[in-house]
Amino acid sequence: MPKKKKLAIIVHSGTLDRIYCAFILGSTATAMDMETHLYFTFWGLNMLVKGGLEKAGLPATYKHMEEQWKKKLGEMKYPTPYELLKRMKASGLLKIYACSPTMQMFGVKKEDFIPEVDEIAGAAAFLDLASDADITLLV
Amino acid sequence: MPKKKKLAIIVHSGTLDRIYCAFILGSTATAMDMETHLYFTFWGLNMLVKGGLEKAGLPATYKHMEEQWKKKLGEMKYPTPYELLKRMKASGLLKIYACSPTMQMFGVKKEDFIPEVDEIAGAAAFLDLASDADITLLV
Amino acid sequence: MPKKKKLAIIVHSGTLDRIYCAFILGSTATAMDMETHLYFTFWGLNMLVKGGLEKAGLPATYKHMEEQWKKKLGEMKYPTPYELLKRMKASGLLKIYACSPTMQMFGVKKEDFIPEVDEIAGAAAFLDLASDADITLLV
Repeated sequence: MPKKKKLAIIVHSGTLDRIYCAFILGSTATAMDMETHLYFTFWGLNMLVKGGLEKAGLPATYKHMEEQWKKKLGEMKYPTPYELLKRMKASGLLKIYACSPTMQMFGVKKEDFIPEVDEIAGAAAFLDLASDADITLLV
Repeated sequence: MPKKKKLAIIVHSGTLDRIYCAFILGSTATAMDMETHLYFTFWGLNMLVKGGLEKAGLPATYKHMEEQWKKKLGEMKYPTPYELLKRMKASGLLKIYACSPTMQMFGVKKEDFIPEVDEIAGAAAFLDLASDADITLLV
Repeated sequence: MPKKKKLAIIVHSGTLDRIYCAFILGSTATAMDMETHLYFTFWGLNMLVKGGLEKAGLPATYKHMEEQWKKKLGEMKYPTPYELLKRMKASGLLKIYACSPTMQMFGVKKEDFIPEVDEIAGAAAFLDLASDADITLLV
């Protein structure tokens, strides 16, 4: 059996534009039968906390466009970030990591997370898998 | 003939500091005889719309420095982003992609683009070429 | 002797959240015996100027959390960015590059830098080493 291609993304951001970017890349990758690894750190970690994805907005630079953009996505019936995450998860090809030092920094506990989180891991675990990935990105 | 090295950049940002970063890397790469692929998505997509590059400014964090910085670049006769793009294009080594889902999201049409755009493509096309690239970055 | 794994990061950002991200990845990499290359450009370049790391704060989107976050890090006795940088440097595995075109753009001179800077280099030097790296990221 040939080895699957592998995508590894550090999700540092917690704004809707960058979360969509990571999740569109990730769901395209799983649809292409690629192993997909998302490592959530800093502001991204909040996206794993229950209700976090639903609260995400645009960064300061684009804040004035937020309401209009969210309305547009709703009219297009564009999948929400959580729907994209569940779609990736359903493929069996997505692994979600929560950054342990960030958890300590922000006082986040394991029981605060959505159930889709696979593993709590430090940067060493990410570097290990990224050094073997075909594509590595930081969002 | 040896295969050329390949650089692939996702241009997610639409602010001048990050556009310059992508275009300086890209124009250095083409000068080094590397194949260069720029995939414009989200705020980056607006940089492909006619007049978009000329309107780019600094992000909220650095907005207060914008006028002074632009003036400085003018005094240095630093090439504008569009000049850098045309220089890369002239090398025959640059390929520019516009992200099709973002076009739909922002209501941008093919005829809105500058003529240098090579291809309208989804994330799958980018992942395909990135998985074979020597360097992949997200700006 | 087997070749060491190599991590290459373009440090474009000059905000504390992204500097920590780069330095935590870098110090983890050196602890894993990986060669680590940090190329500082744009806002990142200011982090190499004496006193620059100490002045770094959060970006506009998260500015309101800055004081509280810095206080928290202090209470945790979390290493400062400069401490992390010195720790990486002590490993003998870190190389720090300052982007020469950015120095010109911002009027920064060699003597303004902290002594840990190894080399003043253009984008070509970075692309050269990145094309041979196991992991390449832009922060």
